[in-house]
Amino acid sequence: MAEEAWGRWGPDDECGALNFVDSEAVRRAVSLVSRGQVLSLAQPISARMPIPPARPRLSHFMARDGGDYAAGARRAGSFAFADDTVVLPLHLGTHIDALCHGWCGHRLYNGVSETEIRSTGAARLGVDKMPPIVSRGVLLDFVAVTGAPLPDGETITLEMLTAAQERADATISPGDVVLLRTGWLESRSAKNKPDFDKEPGLGVEAALMLAEAGASVVGADNYAVEVLPFPEGTIFSVHQRLIRDYGIPLLEGLVLAPLAAVGATKFLFVAAALPIAGATGSPLNPLAVL
Amino acid sequence: MAEEAWGRWGPDDECGALNFVDSEAVRRAVSLVSRGQVLSLAQPISARMPIPPARPRLSHFMARDGGDYAAGARRAGSFAFADDTVVLPLHLGTHIDALCHGWCGHRLYNGVSETEIRSTGAARLGVDKMPPIVSRGVLLDFVAVTGAPLPDGETITLEMLTAAQERADATISPGDVVLLRTGWLESRSAKNKPDFDKEPGLGVEAALMLAEAGASVVGADNYAVEVLPFPEGTIFSVHQRLIRDYGIPLLEGLVLAPLAAVGATKFLFVAAALPIAGATGSPLNPLAVL
Amino acid sequence: MAEEAWGRWGPDDECGALNFVDSEAVRRAVSLVSRGQVLSLAQPISARMPIPPARPRLSHFMARDGGDYAAGARRAGSFAFADDTVVLPLHLGTHIDALCHGWCGHRLYNGVSETEIRSTGAARLGVDKMPPIVSRGVLLDFVAVTGAPLPDGETITLEMLTAAQERADATISPGDVVLLRTGWLESRSAKNKPDFDKEPGLGVEAALMLAEAGASVVGADNYAVEVLPFPEGTIFSVHQRLIRDYGIPLLEGLVLAPLAAVGATKFLFVAAALPIAGATGSPLNPLAVL
Amino acid sequence: MAEEAWGRWGPDDECGALNFVDSEAVRRAVSLVSRGQVLSLAQPISARMPIPPARPRLSHFMARDGGDYAAGARRAGSFAFADDTVVLPLHLGTHIDALCHGWCGHRLYNGVSETEIRSTGAARLGVDKMPPIVSRGVLLDFVAVTGAPLPDGETITLEMLTAAQERADATISPGDVVLLRTGWLESRSAKNKPDFDKEPGLGVEAALMLAEAGASVVGADNYAVEVLPFPEGTIFSVHQRLIRDYGIPLLEGLVLAPLAAVGATKFLFVAAALPIAGATGSPLNPLAVL
Repeated sequence: MAEEAWGRWGPDDECGALNFVDSEAVRRAVSLVSRGQVLSLAQPISARMPIPPARPRLSHFMARDGGDYAAGARRAGSFAFADDTVVLPLHLGTHIDALCHGWCGHRLYNGVSETEIRSTGAARLGVDKMPPIVSRGVLLDFVAVTGAPLPDGETITLEMLTAAQERADATISPGDVVLLRTGWLESRSAKNKPDFDKEPGLGVEAALMLAEAGASVVGADNYAVEVLPFPEGTIFSVHQRLIRDYGIPLLEGLVLAPLAAVGATKFLFVAAALPIAGATGSPLNPLAVL
Repeated sequence: MAEEAWGRWGPDDECGALNFVDSEAVRRAVSLVSRGQVLSLAQPISARMPIPPARPRLSHFMARDGGDYAAGARRAGSFAFADDTVVLPLHLGTHIDALCHGWCGHRLYNGVSETEIRSTGAARLGVDKMPPIVSRGVLLDFVAVTGAPLPDGETITLEMLTAAQERADATISPGDVVLLRTGWLESRSAKNKPDFDKEPGLGVEAALMLAEAGASVVGADNYAVEVLPFPEGTIFSVHQRLIRDYGIPLLEGLVLAPLAAVGATKFLFVAAALPIAGATGSPLNPLAVL
Repeated sequence: MAEEAWGRWGPDDECGALNFVDSEAVRRAVSLVSRGQVLSLAQPISARMPIPPARPRLSHFMARDGGDYAAGARRAGSFAFADDTVVLPLHLGTHIDALCHGWCGHRLYNGVSETEIRSTGAARLGVDKMPPIVSRGVLLDFVAVTGAPLPDGETITLEMLTAAQERADATISPGDVVLLRTGWLESRSAKNKPDFDKEPGLGVEAALMLAEAGASVVGADNYAVEVLPFPEGTIFSVHQRLIRDYGIPLLEGLVLAPLAAVGATKFLFVAAALPIAGATGSPLNPLAVL
Repeated sequence: MAEEAWGRWGPDDECGALNFVDSEAVRRAVSLVSRGQVLSLAQPISARMPIPPARPRLSHFMARDGGDYAAGARRAGSFAFADDTVVLPLHLGTHIDALCHGWCGHRLYNGVSETEIRSTGAARLGVDKMPPIVSRGVLLDFVAVTGAPLPDGETITLEMLTAAQERADATISPGDVVLLRTGWLESRSAKNKPDFDKEPGLGVEAALMLAEAGASVVGADNYAVEVLPFPEGTIFSVHQRLIRDYGIPLLEGLVLAPLAAVGATKFLFVAAALPIAGATGSPLNPLAVL
């Protein structure tokens, strides 16, 4: 294992590549705002959203609702309210993988032992240790580059990465949040349901190029960021290399078509995970501010 | 009922006072950033956080963890991962109340019937209809104004509001996110546990003043934004008036001491709820960018 | 609506046809035991069991397990333990429908208003009001009668009921727990997955015959007791007639092949729902004692 | 560790002392029924039941209820229904501990390694492996023997066990389900809330006597069967000895006062856990048939 970023930010670091985002990077990102337009990059969350067969579903339960009052529930004075609870799998819909989500060889990012990750949660590298993400977002739009959604199983190569950066008039620099539009999510529908075993996505070479360029986060509009099925003899190589070796969190299930539709390529990107103690990820609602 | 903002943004509006935040307001907010410093205003979320006795607790369950591998679980190739699910009450910790959370007299904001809010969720005014919040944040710091955390049961009055605006060198303007630091949360501890029935907070007069000034969101570092216990003969008046009559979402359980500590009074405020279909609120991780 | 059993056991009754099971019926049932053999009639419960697409899945979470100790979790002295929680839909696998589960025309069994059934649970007719079931079980074995599992969509008729009673050498009498073996569940497999929209089951005429004979509970080895698809222009007629009009709880998803295999037709039947306050049903583990 | 029962029923046994209950024992138990009276020994289950502070609470959620119809929800034809889900900690209220619930020294009953118990559940000794319990129940009534509920912290000794057996006119024999009435649960109330750290209960000597006599299950009307606080320097010794060394499941939180009230001492006992794959226990509704 290469473990390129281990120790780079000290032996106790739990923030990984988000360390690249210093106050200067924040200011540069903020300076990109001109229109004052805000776009959400999140999918709606519901029990009906498509999920892989083996994965748990969201459940949303109303503990109190308007129906109860219609049925005669007593109000406290004139006050009425509705309240609810969700059973929420943390790697659902648009979500971020914390640095404790994936590893190999018994050690996680920065050498943390896998024995730190127990039923009580991740004692280290949990999503609660992930700083808020406020940095430059760069949209690498492969739909625009190739003229159509990438076909299932297509690998994003170094050449494609170069072409997409040119189209975006941007070179990935330290601290950038890189968003990959493959067209996968937007080309699914009720009729054309997602097959979570096949999707276009990042190959290892391109992933390493982004990591070496200093990407603080890598996100995509597909299910796993990386290409599925995996190259022969490999399993989640991009997860292993980016999360574990470079300390780069992955953002999955992004909604990127609206961003492309307004022509945005470089923008202020803002996202903040729910700080759930010891969790391995978090659904979130990332924003692009143009 | 006064229903001041009903119809103001059209008969079908579900965004309420967040309509005040136009692109100009976004640009003005962004222009406040100078240091490039980012502060999270969220409490950590865990099963151990203090909650009122009647309220459900968060549960965090690891579906797969490092302990399983230590016990001999088969790896897929060299890849190992951890995964988890939470049972998450939506009005927990630092969270936002959607416009369907509270009402009176059978009608919610903009005249929506309470019968639209059923076991299947809120057909209207759900948190999924709430736009992302990117606007000017203004910290009204009553701890600084009075020199100490406000005592439990203390009502924030019009006079106090004026004093705090003066101290912040800010006048609440349309679209502003108003954050009230009472000192309640920061003065609790394991030894001095929160009593959820008593807290300093907003009185109705001050609340109406903020609403009339065009606040898009009102937040506080206490449990209910408004003062507890309620004034004699009233129940959640501030909730009723702000949420229902003015369409103003409430942000509860904010962590504001660090913001005060760095002397921030006006800043770029960013928060985005999880877009859970039909939900009445959402935990979130609000940010101040200075 | 006929509402045949309303008022039969008093205006406040919440037990319905289980009132037929008096101490004499218990003694008669007990007297059937000769071999001392005990059979469970329940399906195993797991996240992998087949369920209809729209229905929630069971989740089983270990809050503490042996893997944690393998990973170094501290023991209290030498003591180690494992603990767990389930998210459990109550109409899952082998389960019983309480008298508050289904109705029509705004009123439930015995005239209870549907407004008594709110988000806080069923104030009346909840599964917590259902007495334990200890009575004579009678297996009506349509697989044996017809020589094969009934085909999907086949209706159990009066004639079939008569033939099955003859084969069982039993006439349904007041208090009997009637178990219908259609062959549906036992003929499903991983290759031949259940289609929850199609199954052999009880028709209304046969259902009414059982109700008039005094059945205290009607159970089956299928998903809905009654035939699917429903006869044209009807929806859950058997549920409506048995549960609402006769106060007869339904037992669904039974495992009956082993009972048939040992030649049991009349036996001591024992089942007891979890007494969850206000719940509409309960998974349970029914027993036949031969 | 003594590991008295390991290997007694073969190296692969997962049923433990319930192996004592053969068909002869079932017949003997059934022959005790004379009145035809059925008593449930279970506490009601609800979110309001007292639980230890650190333990999760039950949540009960209605996915559909009468309030929804009152609010105008569309009916399918005339059919209406209510449906629900619980978040159910498995060691709640009246429940049974499976043989995988507690252990010491890295090995469970019959030598099973603790590494078999992972986030995916117990591969061995799960509650799904526990046979239904149909055997003679014997009530050992220490409230009757001593004239009052045992005080908190009182240890049930060998002498007390002898006195209680004499009073019950019963000697514990192989296969018996032994039920210990300490008076703990029945003497708690809203005013006198249970302190889960203090209770009367079984001492190790008495526990071993029951185990040696062939008890198939040991149950009690308290929280942990055994005395709390633990004797100096020990932790859950009775759990360790009975569950691990003798393969005896424990039944906790029983309601025994009504059984005592009707003078029952020997009776048909029936209980069956929910067969949840890999679970460490199960709430259940045990019955005494007199």
